[in-house]
Amino acid sequence: MRIAYQGEPGAFSEAAARQVNPDAELVPCKSFEDVFAAVERGPAAYGVLPIENSIGGSIHRNFDLMLEHEVSIQGELEIRVVHHLLALPGVTIEQVKRVYSHPQALAQCDGFLRTLQGVEIIATYDTAGSAKMIADDKLTDAAAIASARAGEVFGLVPLRSSIQDYEGNTTRFLIIGRRPLSKTPPDKTTIVFTLGNEPGALFKALSVFALRGIDLTKLESRPIPGRKWEYLFYADLSAARDDLKCARALAHLAEFAPSLRILGSYPSSRPAEAVEAGS
Amino acid sequence: MRIAYQGEPGAFSEAAARQVNPDAELVPCKSFEDVFAAVERGPAAYGVLPIENSIGGSIHRNFDLMLEHEVSIQGELEIRVVHHLLALPGVTIEQVKRVYSHPQALAQCDGFLRTLQGVEIIATYDTAGSAKMIADDKLTDAAAIASARAGEVFGLVPLRSSIQDYEGNTTRFLIIGRRPLSKTPPDKTTIVFTLGNEPGALFKALSVFALRGIDLTKLESRPIPGRKWEYLFYADLSAARDDLKCARALAHLAEFAPSLRILGSYPSSRPAEAVEAGS
Repeated sequence: MRIAYQGEPGAFSEAAARQVNPDAELVPCKSFEDVFAAVERGPAAYGVLPIENSIGGSIHRNFDLMLEHEVSIQGELEIRVVHHLLALPGVTIEQVKRVYSHPQALAQCDGFLRTLQGVEIIATYDTAGSAKMIADDKLTDAAAIASARAGEVFGLVPLRSSIQDYEGNTTRFLIIGRRPLSKTPPDKTTIVFTLGNEPGALFKALSVFALRGIDLTKLESRPIPGRKWEYLFYADLSAARDDLKCARALAHLAEFAPSLRILGSYPSSRPAEAVEAGS
Repeated sequence: MRIAYQGEPGAFSEAAARQVNPDAELVPCKSFEDVFAAVERGPAAYGVLPIENSIGGSIHRNFDLMLEHEVSIQGELEIRVVHHLLALPGVTIEQVKRVYSHPQALAQCDGFLRTLQGVEIIATYDTAGSAKMIADDKLTDAAAIASARAGEVFGLVPLRSSIQDYEGNTTRFLIIGRRPLSKTPPDKTTIVFTLGNEPGALFKALSVFALRGIDLTKLESRPIPGRKWEYLFYADLSAARDDLKCARALAHLAEFAPSLRILGSYPSSRPAEAVEAGS
C-alpha cells in the first residue's frame, strides 16, 4: 500500500502516514495539491493531510482543495506536536541569528520565540524542510523548529526541546482515498454546503441536524473565491451518512441549500490514539 | 490624530490607515501586537488591522489578539487588493529565481505563481517588507509581490501587474480604538463567546438571534489554546448593541454561554467604499 504525504521525511505528516499503516510505502510530495493528485490518479491508495491544529486552527488550504478533487475522506487521526529548536552539532543558542519554520509551527512556539533577542524569524513552507536546508547549506548561524525525527533524519541536534506554548498541541489529519480504509463502521460525516444570502439561513441549516439530535462537532466558514463575503460552510456531523436520521437531515438541507456535497463518512478517531511524531 | 498600522509604508494596512483619515499621522508598527499596544497605551488614537480577505479568509491572529487587549472595534473598512510582481528597474522576468511575499498574498496569486518555472516561492511576514528587502539588498534575481505603492516607495517596477487570481480581491480591516470614531450610529456588533461541550449548543446560541430576527453576517470558530477541540466563536451581528432586540438576545446568550464579550458596536462599511491601495 502506498500513502502520500506533504513534506520531507521527518515532517509531522510523515508520522501521520506511518500511523495509518506502518508497513506502507510512503510517498513524499512537494505540495498538498500533489498529495491529492497522487491519490486521485494513483499511484497512492491513500493520502494524509493536516486539517486542524488544536492551537493554530484550521489549515484552510486543505479544505479548499477537498472541493477541487474527486477523493473522499476515509478516516482521521491525531498526532501530538512536539517542537524542538534544531541546529547543527556544536552550534550554541548564542550563535543563532535566524530561526526557520512553517508559520503554524512559529505560531505554536510564539511564547518561546519572544524570549530570543535579536533573532530573525523566517517563515518557510515546511518544518522538516527547514531542518534539511540548515543541514544542506551547513548554516551555523541558524536553527529550525521541527520534530525530533526531522533532527535525526538531517543530523541536527536540539538546542531546546519541547518549545511549543501548550502541552496538548495536537494536529488532526484527514486520510483521503478512493476506497474505505477500515472495516470499522463510519460514525462521522463531513459535508460542505452553501447558503442563500438571507437572514437566518445558517440557523435554518443547523436546525435540520439539531431537530434530529445530530451533533455538529465542527463548523467552519470559508469565503467563496470570486464572490465577496459569500461563504461555504464545512461541517462535521456525529453520525454516519447512511444513518436514517442523518440521511433525512441531509435531504432536508438539500431542499434549500444551493449546493451540498458529502466529503466522506468515516470512523472518528479516539483522542487516546494521538501519538507523538517521531516517537 | 495618530493611526497605527502593521508593516512598511506601501503595505495594504497603510492604505487602510490613510482611508480612515487622510490627514492623520501614520504610525508604522512591526507587528499586530505593536498596533494593539500603540492604541491601548497611546500614542495612537486608532489602529487598523486586516481581519478577513475575500479569497484567503480570516486573519486568525488578529481575532486572538482582540481577546488579549482592552480596546474596542470602532469601525471597519474595505481595501481592494491589487498585487504586482515588483523588481529592480532593468531586471527581466527570466532573471527572477525567487519570489518573496506574505503567505496570504502568495495564496491570492497562486494561479499566476504556477505559471513560473523553476522559481522558488518564499513566504515572508510582509508584502511591502519584501519589496523593501529587494531594494535594500539590491537583489537582481528576485521579485516581490506587493502593492503598486510599495513599488513607488522602494523604487521597484512591476514586471507583471494585477496578478491576483480573482478580480474582486478585497481585504476587510477593523478600526480599533478607545473612543468612537464616527458620529454615524452603530448598526453592527461583534461578539466572542464560548459554549459548553454539549450537543446542539451552537444551534441554541444562534437561536437567540434568529428568533429575534437578528442576522449573523459572519461566524468564525477558533480553538481555545490549551483546550483541545474546544472552540471560541466570533460572530458579527447586524444590529447595534443598544438596540433593544440585540440587547435582549445578548442577555439571553449570556444565560447559558460560559463566557461572552462584546468586542465592539460600530457602523458597518458600505461595499462601495472599497478603494484600491495606492490609488
